[in-house]
Amino acid sequence: VRVELLTIGDEVLRGDVVNGAAAWLGRRLTEAGVRVGRVAVLPDEAEAIASAVEEASRRAEIVIMTGGLGGTSDDRTRDALAMTAGVGLRRDPAMVRALRERAASRGVPLREGALRMADVPEGATLLPNPAGTAPGLRLVLPRATVYALPGVVAEMRAIAEESVLPELGGGGPAAARVLRTATVWESVVCDRLGPVEALPGVRLAYYPSPGEVAVRIEAADHERLAAAEEAARALLGSVVYGSDDATLDRVVHRLLADRGATVAVAESLTGGLIGAELTGMPGSSATFRGAVVAYATALKHSLLGVPADLLATHGAVHPDVAVAMARGVRERLGATYGLAATGVAGPQPQDGRPVGTVHLAVTGTGDDPPAVRSVRLPVPEDGARARAPIRRMSVVHALDLLRRFLLNLGTYDAWTG
Amino acid sequence: VRVELLTIGDEVLRGDVVNGAAAWLGRRLTEAGVRVGRVAVLPDEAEAIASAVEEASRRAEIVIMTGGLGGTSDDRTRDALAMTAGVGLRRDPAMVRALRERAASRGVPLREGALRMADVPEGATLLPNPAGTAPGLRLVLPRATVYALPGVVAEMRAIAEESVLPELGGGGPAAARVLRTATVWESVVCDRLGPVEALPGVRLAYYPSPGEVAVRIEAADHERLAAAEEAARALLGSVVYGSDDATLDRVVHRLLADRGATVAVAESLTGGLIGAELTGMPGSSATFRGAVVAYATALKHSLLGVPADLLATHGAVHPDVAVAMARGVRERLGATYGLAATGVAGPQPQDGRPVGTVHLAVTGTGDDPPAVRSVRLPVPEDGARARAPIRRMSVVHALDLLRRFLLNLGTYDAWTG
Repeated sequence: VRVELLTIGDEVLRGDVVNGAAAWLGRRLTEAGVRVGRVAVLPDEAEAIASAVEEASRRAEIVIMTGGLGGTSDDRTRDALAMTAGVGLRRDPAMVRALRERAASRGVPLREGALRMADVPEGATLLPNPAGTAPGLRLVLPRATVYALPGVVAEMRAIAEESVLPELGGGGPAAARVLRTATVWESVVCDRLGPVEALPGVRLAYYPSPGEVAVRIEAADHERLAAAEEAARALLGSVVYGSDDATLDRVVHRLLADRGATVAVAESLTGGLIGAELTGMPGSSATFRGAVVAYATALKHSLLGVPADLLATHGAVHPDVAVAMARGVRERLGATYGLAATGVAGPQPQDGRPVGTVHLAVTGTGDDPPAVRSVRLPVPEDGARARAPIRRMSVVHALDLLRRFLLNLGTYDAWTG
Repeated sequence: VRVELLTIGDEVLRGDVVNGAAAWLGRRLTEAGVRVGRVAVLPDEAEAIASAVEEASRRAEIVIMTGGLGGTSDDRTRDALAMTAGVGLRRDPAMVRALRERAASRGVPLREGALRMADVPEGATLLPNPAGTAPGLRLVLPRATVYALPGVVAEMRAIAEESVLPELGGGGPAAARVLRTATVWESVVCDRLGPVEALPGVRLAYYPSPGEVAVRIEAADHERLAAAEEAARALLGSVVYGSDDATLDRVVHRLLADRGATVAVAESLTGGLIGAELTGMPGSSATFRGAVVAYATALKHSLLGVPADLLATHGAVHPDVAVAMARGVRERLGATYGLAATGVAGPQPQDGRPVGTVHLAVTGTGDDPPAVRSVRLPVPEDGARARAPIRRMSVVHALDLLRRFLLNLGTYDAWTG
């Protein structure tokens, strides 16, 4: 089965946003063993969209469109589909009711224009939207089946997972597994996996993001995949924190929950990002007590009890400060574990420490020695862009340090440098 | 002049990488007043590429291709161009010399395959690559001029700036302005702007994100743009927080900095996101003291001084709790202003309050009455996906409440509900 994707939106043509919708669909379809033959990005013009649908349906059995389904005047996908099929639009009464109820529940009047979301090309089926207002559409043309999904990424994904991907069949999911690693360089992961790369019928791809590298192993069959995964895990060791959809925050949450334990966080350069990460998943209140963001140096003393002379001697960016922060927040917030991060996000050095210097600490009960990790994170040449990746990498290193502490793995693998 | 872009590469179709090349070209061309009519992403197959070039040249005067120009077997752009033009490839002697010299200077042997980079479709011109090895190509077809650039972004940019953009002319930058609003529904913004939508020579587009709506106004000329912007600002009033590249966090930072003031934040459902947002920009330590994330209810009393009987009577999700949190954090962290958020991110209700209930408060010096905003944020039907948008909307509402407080705008516009 051959699929083409059409992304609708002037904002994508102008480069105001990158085409994340096509990237997400490309990845999901590839995982499902379906090949994307072409992607086209089109303007918010019904004629241009209609002619692209027509062209795509001559080459592919499945056409998936994203965007142009909202309730404003620049949303032209419904008109374009009606044009391509040579049919009219009917107004769906159930959808009109749903729109009225939604508006009423928000206490706002229903705009006349919003009713466009209830317009359906004759012969098309509505696909329920579990994540928002505008439903998707399925329309069977003589040569291809067309799916139209909203441009809002969360809604597009929800409808695609629920109503589109299950219908495509494909070659069945490819034999593939993603191993997720934290705190190691892509080049190191890549070097380590040389022997796996050389296995016949096995293909590796690397997806780096700040502080993490995901390795996708694809194999000709499930037996070869199992062998390749085993080899890769043996070569990578404890830097693999999970596989497939695992995320570091959920892994840490699960480890704490299994122990009936909680964590409290003391932050500085991350400004609240570690707490935000640990509260992203449902049920986080079982394992997360709270956080203190002591951004101003004096607050590290007054809120967290970091000794004033330590701050006076070494400044705020020092491993002992990280340990004192972790101890202070654990005690004051009544948690099983304390986790702390202090460092320099840039663009300017702080207390004589260069941009990218980060110290992290985890403390448990008084008897256990604390775990400390000190790193020099890489700074892009354009230092003004450094803050976001350095802060994100600090979050990954902090969560990974807590993971290793909970698993008694030691603070670091020697080979990660 | 109408331009189409062709991106070559299986990795983009599979979604392994987003199409950053097209986004960059789209932005640069738009700035130069040139409109991109369509983008297509194509596989590493000469026939598919050739037929896409042929199609694009029927619609556009200029076709810009990126990718497929390197020295490996999956680089098929040169073959495709020769196929489209119905010509052969010639090996350019000067380019062969340059490749040999480059290899020698690096002390590596020249791969036979690398010589493909010296192959040029008959009639095409080489465009020098100031940033790498593979040159670009210019080929004049009967109906369009085709430019082919390498996929490596730095090289693509260098050749585009030096050899492509100066040749395109373009009508100069489009007359456009983006107005940014917070805390109002897209449908409300859209309704309000009906009269602007009706102005001749003016086009509006709406870009919603959780809690925000950006409105792009494009006009036939700068005079019309100025009139449309003035009309839009009058209709939207104080919900416009900035224009073009403005972001709410930077607007708030600037307002605080102008007053020599600081803020401290007390968070609950946002878990640290408000602090993270206020520390994203360089120089944030001048206006941000710190934050207390009192996630466990008891910590709202012990860390922030919220009266225990208030928590016992009303639970943690109540406007008076938000005010007490703001007062407590302002005092304990020694800030000019205190900002607080408490609410229910879901998926379960809390203390009998439904998911989406959020109370926000700002306090200043003792004499000013606090500003309070209580909202019921919309919850997707699939409640498990609610947390991320509800938390993000809470951040936007919180920062906007502080903005309005600093500007003495009153807590809310009546028309936003």
